[in-house]
Parts: sequence; C-alpha cells; structure tokens
Amino acid sequence: MKASIITIGDEILIGQIVDTNTVFIARELNALGIVVAEKLSIGDDRQQITDTLRRTLDFSDVVILTGGLGPTKDDITKHTLAEMFHSPMRFDEQVASHVERMLTSRGIDFNELNRAQALVPECCEVLFNRHGTAPGMWFEHEGKIIVSLPGVPFEMKHLMEDEVLPRLKQRFTLRAIVHRTLITSGLAESMLAKRIEKWEDALPSYLKLAYLPNPSAVRLRLSAYEVDGESVSKEIDRQFSELEKIIPEYVVGYETASMEEIVHRMLTERGKTLSTAESCTGGSIASRFTAMAGASQYFLAGVVSYSNEAKADILGVDPSTIERYGAVSEQVARQMAEGARRISGSDYAISTTGIAGPTGGSEEKPVGTVWMAVATPTHTVAVCKQCGTDRGQVINRASGFAIALLHDELLKA
Amino acid sequence: MKASIITIGDEILIGQIVDTNTVFIARELNALGIVVAEKLSIGDDRQQITDTLRRTLDFSDVVILTGGLGPTKDDITKHTLAEMFHSPMRFDEQVASHVERMLTSRGIDFNELNRAQALVPECCEVLFNRHGTAPGMWFEHEGKIIVSLPGVPFEMKHLMEDEVLPRLKQRFTLRAIVHRTLITSGLAESMLAKRIEKWEDALPSYLKLAYLPNPSAVRLRLSAYEVDGESVSKEIDRQFSELEKIIPEYVVGYETASMEEIVHRMLTERGKTLSTAESCTGGSIASRFTAMAGASQYFLAGVVSYSNEAKADILGVDPSTIERYGAVSEQVARQMAEGARRISGSDYAISTTGIAGPTGGSEEKPVGTVWMAVATPTHTVAVCKQCGTDRGQVINRASGFAIALLHDELLKA
Repeated sequence: MKASIITIGDEILIGQIVDTNTVFIARELNALGIVVAEKLSIGDDRQQITDTLRRTLDFSDVVILTGGLGPTKDDITKHTLAEMFHSPMRFDEQVASHVERMLTSRGIDFNELNRAQALVPECCEVLFNRHGTAPGMWFEHEGKIIVSLPGVPFEMKHLMEDEVLPRLKQRFTLRAIVHRTLITSGLAESMLAKRIEKWEDALPSYLKLAYLPNPSAVRLRLSAYEVDGESVSKEIDRQFSELEKIIPEYVVGYETASMEEIVHRMLTERGKTLSTAESCTGGSIASRFTAMAGASQYFLAGVVSYSNEAKADILGVDPSTIERYGAVSEQVARQMAEGARRISGSDYAISTTGIAGPTGGSEEKPVGTVWMAVATPTHTVAVCKQCGTDRGQVINRASGFAIALLHDELLKA
Repeated sequence: MKASIITIGDEILIGQIVDTNTVFIARELNALGIVVAEKLSIGDDRQQITDTLRRTLDFSDVVILTGGLGPTKDDITKHTLAEMFHSPMRFDEQVASHVERMLTSRGIDFNELNRAQALVPECCEVLFNRHGTAPGMWFEHEGKIIVSLPGVPFEMKHLMEDEVLPRLKQRFTLRAIVHRTLITSGLAESMLAKRIEKWEDALPSYLKLAYLPNPSAVRLRLSAYEVDGESVSKEIDRQFSELEKIIPEYVVGYETASMEEIVHRMLTERGKTLSTAESCTGGSIASRFTAMAGASQYFLAGVVSYSNEAKADILGVDPSTIERYGAVSEQVARQMAEGARRISGSDYAISTTGIAGPTGGSEEKPVGTVWMAVATPTHTVAVCKQCGTDRGQVINRASGFAIALLHDELLKA
C-alpha cells in the first residue's frame, strides 16, 4: 500500500510558510501501515494539480491533498477535482447549515462565498469538518482513494483522525510499518558506523538502518515496511540489545515521546505540581507544558521575569545578588526557581536566565549562555549550558535542556 | 526560469522531521527571480532519485537536491548522481584535508568513511563546505543546472549563500519576482472578499492575489512572476493604495509582519512597556513577544496564572470575584490585566482566561470561551471571544485576539 501527499498553495513554493501538515499525515499513514512514497508541494494551478494527481495515482493507492479549499478565488482545488472526475456539483445542506451556524456565532455574515463552501462534487463523499467551514472530500476512482483536506492544520488533523484514518483502516487490509530508534551519544557518526559495521552488515535484509546525526546525539533508526508487526518488533528488540552489547557506554535511550510529554506523564502519575520562572526562554517552557491537555492538573503558575525588577518583585530574587553576580548567573537561576516554587506552592519549579541575543552578549557571557535551575522539595540544582547563537535556537535549546534537567531530578526522586 | 527542489531522506517520508531547508531555498530562489515550480520529498532510493531528477529536469532549468551525502551506507545521493551522469569518481585532496582537519580538531578519528567523503564525480564542480564534511556539488547537464547539497540546515544555508546563489546570478539573466503583502484586521476572509470584489476583479492579469487568513488578521498577498521589478512594485503600491481607500479602517500594515511584530514596533517606538497575565494561553503570548529580538526593551514580566491561587496570590485577583463570577469571567480578566500592570509597573498589560479544553467546558461556558482584557494607563477593556474547539486552536486564536485587542488600544492612544 503506497500513498502520496500533495500540498497545494503558492505560499509553500515561495517559502512563506513551513509545512507541518505533511509531517503529521506521513506519521499517521506510517502508523497505519501505509508507505508514503512521495511528498509534493505545488501551486494553486489547475493544470499542475491535475497533472500531479494523475502522475501520483500511477504508483499510489491513496493520494491525500491538502489546501486550496478556502472561500476565495485563489482556492481552486475543489473545482479542479470536480472537473477531473467529470462530476457536477451538488449543494450539501448539512455543510451549509453548519457553516452558517459557525459564522453567525462569530458575528460573521453568511454570504454567497460561504454558501459556495457547501457546494461539493456529486461523486465524492463529504468528510464533515466540525472545526471549520471547508468540508473534506473522499473520492474513489478506479480502485484508488483520493482525499482532499483543508490546509488549516487543526482542521486537517481532526479530519484525518476522525474520518480519513478510520476509513482507510476499514477499506484496506494493511500490514505493519515498524520504525524504532535508538539514541547514541558520544561517538561521531563515522566512528559509530565503524564500530557497528559487522552488526549492520548482518542485519536481515528487510530491516533498513538509517543514521540520524545531530549535534548532541546520533540516532539509529531501524525500519521495516509492510511486515508482520509483532514478529518484526521482536526482531528489532533483539537487534538493538545486540547493539547495546557492542557499544554499552554510548546508548542513552530509545525514542518515544518528547521530553515534555514524558515529564507531563510523570508529574500527572505522581500527583506532583510544577511552576516556572523564565527569563530568556520568555514563556516557552510554560507554553510547552500548557499546550498539553491535562496540564492544569499539575501546572500551577509561571512567571516570565524579563526585567530585573520582575525577578525581584515577583519572584523575590535578592537585588543585591543580581547586582553582584549579574542576572545571568547560577545564583539568580537558583533564586528564581526557589521563588517560583515558593509563590506558587508547587512541588517542582524550573528556571532559566540567559542571553538569547542577538545583542547583550559579552566576552565572558556570550550570546547563548543560559543558566537554568530546578528546585525540588529537598534541594535545588543548577547548570550552565551553551545554547547556540541564533535567538530562536537559544530559546528552543534552553527550554529543552531545562525540561531535561527536571526529568533527571524526577528520575532520581 | 523555473526550479525544482528535491529533499532526499526517508526521515521526511515517515514524518520524523519537519523540513525547513526547502523553505529557505524557496525564499532565496524567489528573491533571485527564479520561480519554484515544485517541491518534492523522496526516499533514499536509487531508482526514485534518478526518475525524479529526470522528470523535474523536463520542466526545470535548475534542480536543487538536499540530503543523502553523509558518510554512512544509507546515504546514496552522490553515487546515484555519478551513475546517472556516467561519471567516474575522483579524490579531491582539498576536501580530504579539510575533513581531516575538522575531525581531528573535534577528537574524531579520520577513518576510511570520512576519506570517502572526498570522493566526488569527475563531472561536477565541488562547492566547498567549510562548515561540514560533505562537499556540495554543481553539475551542468544539457544546459541545465543540478546542485546537490548536504541536508544539515546550517551547512546547506552557507553553501546556498556563499556558492549557489552567486553562481546562479552570474549564470543567468533573471527577471524579478515580486511578492507584497497587506495586512487587514477586523473582517473575516469571506466578508473581506465581498468588500473588495470589484477591486480584485479589476487587477491586471499579471498580478496574482492570495488570501492568507489567520485568527488575528487576513493578509492579502499580490505576486508577480518574472517581471520588471521596479514598474511592478510601483503598480502594486498603486493597487494597495486603492485598496486602502475601500477599507481604510481595516488595513493595519504591510508585508509579512505578524500582529505581534506590529505591536512590538509600536511599543518600541513609543518607549512604552508591556506585561502579560495568561491563564488559558499558558505563556503563548509572552513567548510570542519574547521570541523577537529587542523585546527586553519593553517586555517587563509575564505571569502564567493557571491555578486560582496563582491568580489571587501573584496577580492580586480578589478570591471572592473568582468565587462569584468564576475564573473565566470579565471581572477576573480585568483584574488579571490590572494586576499584571501593577506588579510589573508596565504601561500596558494583556490578560486571558478561558477554557482551552478538551475538558472543563459547560453549557454556559463551552470549550473555547475566552475572556481577555487589556489594561492601559487610563482604562481597561475586556472582550469575550469564541476561540474554537481544539486546544491548540483555542490557545493560538486567543493569543492572536488578545494581541489584536492591545493593537486596537495602541491605535487609539
């Protein structure tokens, strides 16, 4: 079972937006056992949409398109599909009344452009989009499936989860795709490859090995496509435990969830609470946690203490400590975490204080220098990390490191 | 002049990474005047690489490939290109000594895998990669250009800037691509489209209009491809000033600035300061502002008051108000904003309190109900917005609406 994913919209071809839709779709299709053969981005162009869909249908059982379903003239996906499948349009009353209700509740006129959103090709099945105004569409054509979804990420996600994936599961008998990742740290990619060469060469041919290097780790992914999931998972377990024997000191873990998801689960299970005190990360740690459903069970409060006064007045950091050691210092990071814990009454608190850049760096504390601390019921730990040179990178890495520091403390507790 | 961009690597097809490389490449090619016709992601597969490159060369003058150049066995791009162009390999001494120096300085063995990175097809020109071990490659084939770059983002970026873009500029006589964006706020997409219908219909045919809606604004982009840059820019200026006459009260700015960038600029220029008090948005507003360089000039402090105790203890919200009206209420939103202003000493403060979901909703206050307020030096305004049904959407929309509310107050001040 092969699939292709096509995103439609000039904004991708001119580099105006980052495409995260196809990341989600690819992951979900893989989890279902459908191999993604190709991903494409094309423009809002009738001919290009038609040609691309024809070509990908040659080698795909399923083609998923996103984008181009808005109410305005630049959006042409729906009419192009109707034309391609020689289908007249019909007016869907259920969609129309849903769109009207939705817009009226937001104080928006229900005009003929919105009414036109309820026009769908007769030959398709409507995938009801309860979160937006553009319906999804499911076409069957010569035994193949074509799905058209809106490009708005959360609308697409809900339609995939509620409609597309269940239908694909029911429609096809699918074999499994298995991806498993082992994380190594401390060996460069080429050295690692030499060390595990014999193991790699002896892998069964249906297991595909990929090296995924990044600055702090090299991840090794074993993949198998369209196999019996259970027996292949067992074989991968066996292969990875072989590998652990070859490089025991370099294996640091297996990839599952993100670090904040792991911490989220640990805090929830243990009934412990959390607060944050952020300077350079500016609310990014708080928003990573609060983005997850159920965060209100353990997340009590966060403070973004950007100014020195806020550090002193809200968190109770001693102004003389700031004066003596600077705002970016171990002492201030510790007092921030302890202050957050105190004012919120939480069990744990995370703090960050650093130089996100682009300005504010010095010889001694260059851009990217971040002190972070975790206060626990029994003690406080603090570390300093170099988090890069680009502002976004510094915020991102510092948030990640600080959450990992809390994770370490939770493991020890 | 048309280009295609191909990323090679299974990690994209299985949804393991978000592709930002092609965003950068697409933007740079557009700026140079080269139209990106298609973007593709394919696997580390010899046949697929060959077929895709052949197909895209049919309609592209330039094809840029990234990925698959590492030292390990899963990376096959280089040998596939050599095979395709019937070229033997040669050993590049300069690359070899650079790789050896680079690895030695990091304490990494220079082994035969690294040595093999200095093997390049004879028919290509090496693009020297001073930031990594895999050289870039420049091929000319039947009057077309094929460029192969490493997939590591900063290595790719430096090679694009230092080698690829200057060569393309020199090699071709390029016309301009112009993209200009006008930002509107306060009209839903479909209402806006009706209001400007006549203007849209009268646009010259070489100007392409796109609607780019998000919760706080609808951006209108005019694009023209392969034109005389200067005269088309003037025409776009003329068209946009026409448009301003039609909807004067809804035009808030130009170019791709987000609402927070516009507010960032207004606060900076006026020397005014800001604080935030967030409940349901969980730090998302603070992190949007602090993500921008220079935010420390005006952003004093933010509080994520997730628990009722935090609202009372940190922000000074009256517990009896919470008890009487509930945490999601106009009264609490007002007291939160005023509290943030008071404890931080800022000129302005934004607050949000709502139900992000998926649980916690009621008949009277369903998921997505958000009260938000802005406190100014003279008064406080509060509004209630329905921000959707999905947790991520609610956080995102509520943040956007709240920032737009501050923007309205800044306009009036």
